[in-house]
Amino acid sequence: MEIITSSIITIGDELLIGQVVDTNSAWMAQELNQVGISVSRRVAVGDDWQAIWNAIDQEMAGSHIVLVTGGLGPTADDITKPLLNEYFGGKLVLNQKVLEHVRYLFDKVYKRPMIPRNEKQAEVPDTCTVIHNANGTAPGMWFEKNGRILVSMPGVPFEMKGMMKDSVIPELVGRYKLPLILHRTMLTAGIGESFLADRISAFENALPSHVKLAYLPHYGMVRLRLSATGFNREELIMQMDSLFETLQEQLADVVATSRDEPMEAAVARLLLERNATLATAESCTGGYIAHLITSRAGSSQYFNGSVISYANAVKTDLLGVPEATLQSDGAVSEATVTQMVKGALASFKSDYAIATSGIMGPGGGSEEKPVGTVWIAAGNKNGVRAMRFQFRFDRMRNIELASFNALNFLRKFMLDQSFHPKN
Amino acid sequence: MEIITSSIITIGDELLIGQVVDTNSAWMAQELNQVGISVSRRVAVGDDWQAIWNAIDQEMAGSHIVLVTGGLGPTADDITKPLLNEYFGGKLVLNQKVLEHVRYLFDKVYKRPMIPRNEKQAEVPDTCTVIHNANGTAPGMWFEKNGRILVSMPGVPFEMKGMMKDSVIPELVGRYKLPLILHRTMLTAGIGESFLADRISAFENALPSHVKLAYLPHYGMVRLRLSATGFNREELIMQMDSLFETLQEQLADVVATSRDEPMEAAVARLLLERNATLATAESCTGGYIAHLITSRAGSSQYFNGSVISYANAVKTDLLGVPEATLQSDGAVSEATVTQMVKGALASFKSDYAIATSGIMGPGGGSEEKPVGTVWIAAGNKNGVRAMRFQFRFDRMRNIELASFNALNFLRKFMLDQSFHPKN
Repeated sequence: MEIITSSIITIGDELLIGQVVDTNSAWMAQELNQVGISVSRRVAVGDDWQAIWNAIDQEMAGSHIVLVTGGLGPTADDITKPLLNEYFGGKLVLNQKVLEHVRYLFDKVYKRPMIPRNEKQAEVPDTCTVIHNANGTAPGMWFEKNGRILVSMPGVPFEMKGMMKDSVIPELVGRYKLPLILHRTMLTAGIGESFLADRISAFENALPSHVKLAYLPHYGMVRLRLSATGFNREELIMQMDSLFETLQEQLADVVATSRDEPMEAAVARLLLERNATLATAESCTGGYIAHLITSRAGSSQYFNGSVISYANAVKTDLLGVPEATLQSDGAVSEATVTQMVKGALASFKSDYAIATSGIMGPGGGSEEKPVGTVWIAAGNKNGVRAMRFQFRFDRMRNIELASFNALNFLRKFMLDQSFHPKN
Repeated sequence: MEIITSSIITIGDELLIGQVVDTNSAWMAQELNQVGISVSRRVAVGDDWQAIWNAIDQEMAGSHIVLVTGGLGPTADDITKPLLNEYFGGKLVLNQKVLEHVRYLFDKVYKRPMIPRNEKQAEVPDTCTVIHNANGTAPGMWFEKNGRILVSMPGVPFEMKGMMKDSVIPELVGRYKLPLILHRTMLTAGIGESFLADRISAFENALPSHVKLAYLPHYGMVRLRLSATGFNREELIMQMDSLFETLQEQLADVVATSRDEPMEAAVARLLLERNATLATAESCTGGYIAHLITSRAGSSQYFNGSVISYANAVKTDLLGVPEATLQSDGAVSEATVTQMVKGALASFKSDYAIATSGIMGPGGGSEEKPVGTVWIAAGNKNGVRAMRFQFRFDRMRNIELASFNALNFLRKFMLDQSFHPKN
């Protein structure tokens, strides 16, 4: 059976001068893969007629489906619509339904008067099928030519996402007989990519040809992904289950989570299982751990809050770190993070707490405590464990690494029997 | 004079199944633009021999410079090196200098034994010039063919960035006579894209052909970017200064910052100018405001810290919000955020404070306070101002919007004379 392939084209000068990071493509690729449509290329071009035209021509020749985002706004740099109109040989006509929707948005949602520029958004090529944009004024457009499909959507992420979920994906699924693509992902911590590869090389070499293994280094950890393609769901699931189990067994000592989830989700599951609460006392991570945790829906069930103690006085005033400790050991020390955990447990009346204190750079380092030095502690009422980490990157990456490692440190602490005596 | 064009090719299945967001391309595009190299296309392909080969062939035909990242790791899914070796018709040879560097990294930095897999990383095609990778084991490779340049670098962001800054960009700058590309960016708040376009349409229509204006909607704000290309630096700067000033005058009431900087940088500048300190009391934003602030180097100069009061008890215990207020007005209310600001000013002994409290979704909404309802307050010793916002997106976007609006709300508060009486 034929594999259905797609290309994603993103349009906008801002992508080529690097002013924005393209997050749309990754999201679209995920959605397409989930329904068995393989993505073979992603292309970004500027707001330039010839460049867009060539990209469309090229991708239409190579893929069954071409998804295009961007260039549909009401401003002069947006040229996708007239270009598609010409490419598919139609003429622009006012679409009454779209016009009503635009009017509704201005009337009821934006509560602003409409200007002629907005009305023009209701014009669409007569060669396309209009796709409803529930979240914005620019309609999506579905074209077909020589058995190939091109769908044009706005570049605004939540508008594009709504259209993909509500219209484009269901329509594509109905159109083709699609193969199953299954992915299984685990996150390992504490082992380098090449060592991992060596440990599982026999496993990797024995994989059947329709199953692929990928190594995705991520914040000093490595995600491993098994991907399988096929048409028999039950068979494929059974085979993947078995392969994944083998892999888990071989790597039991280094697997942080064997689901396709971020570290904070693994921690959330542990907390929910125990009906326990967490607080964080963050110095160098500056709230990033709390942000990772609270980005998840339902986090108020297990997260009490955080003190971000950027100034030393805050460590004393709000977390009860004795001034003597700060004087003798310094803010970046085992003694300080241990006290911070105890302070957070008390202030937030939580079951568990994490604390971080370190030097993220670029300034502030010394010979004894160079930039990247971070003390991390985790604890509960039975005790606190602390560890020194050394990162060696730029500020933002150091913050991210410290946060992910702190969550992993808590996870290990929660699984450590010695801090969880049977009552 | 000829415009020097480039293409960026990123390699990796993870980009096509959407498991990672490609941040490398945006960064590379920025660096290239800054030195006057125009980026005409960005292409992502999977770990597939034919797909990579075709992409290289296509981009080499269209651009002077092709930068390739990814596929250079030590694992089996990395095929870029043998492919480039074949494409440029050479043979793989062990490079003694690279081998020494790999040995040094394992000996002194990673402090782990080397395995044969790592040694293979020192093999390079004899048709390339090796680019030193200060931050990792995989060397970069510089190829030339028919007057075109192809540079291959690892996909690990900090490794690629080091090589770009230390070797690739300086080498390219020395090679070509490059035009100047100047960008000027301002961030507007409180006005939609189409209204903005209408207000400045006369300005936009009168722009000379070598100057472009772009609208970049971003978290309910719109960034405006003027870009000019030329060869006479002084002339171009003068012209851009004048155009940008005109634009600033026309939009004075809606400009949040007229630099190419995020909102938190605009706030940081104001705080530093006044030698003032800030604290945040975050409920619904969960530490994201603190994270934005502390991501900036030197933020400890003006940021004291934060209380993230996810649980209501924390609002009372650590921020002194009276229980009576929480009972009568609820946690998401003007009275609560006002008290949170006062509590933060006192607890952190800071000059300014921001507070947020809201319902981010997907659950927790009511008819009176639907999902997306957020109260934001900012204050100093002279008073507190609060405002209700209504966002209507998903949880993560609501958090981001609330955070950006809170920073903008503080910025406006800081510029409001009535809270800053002359002493």
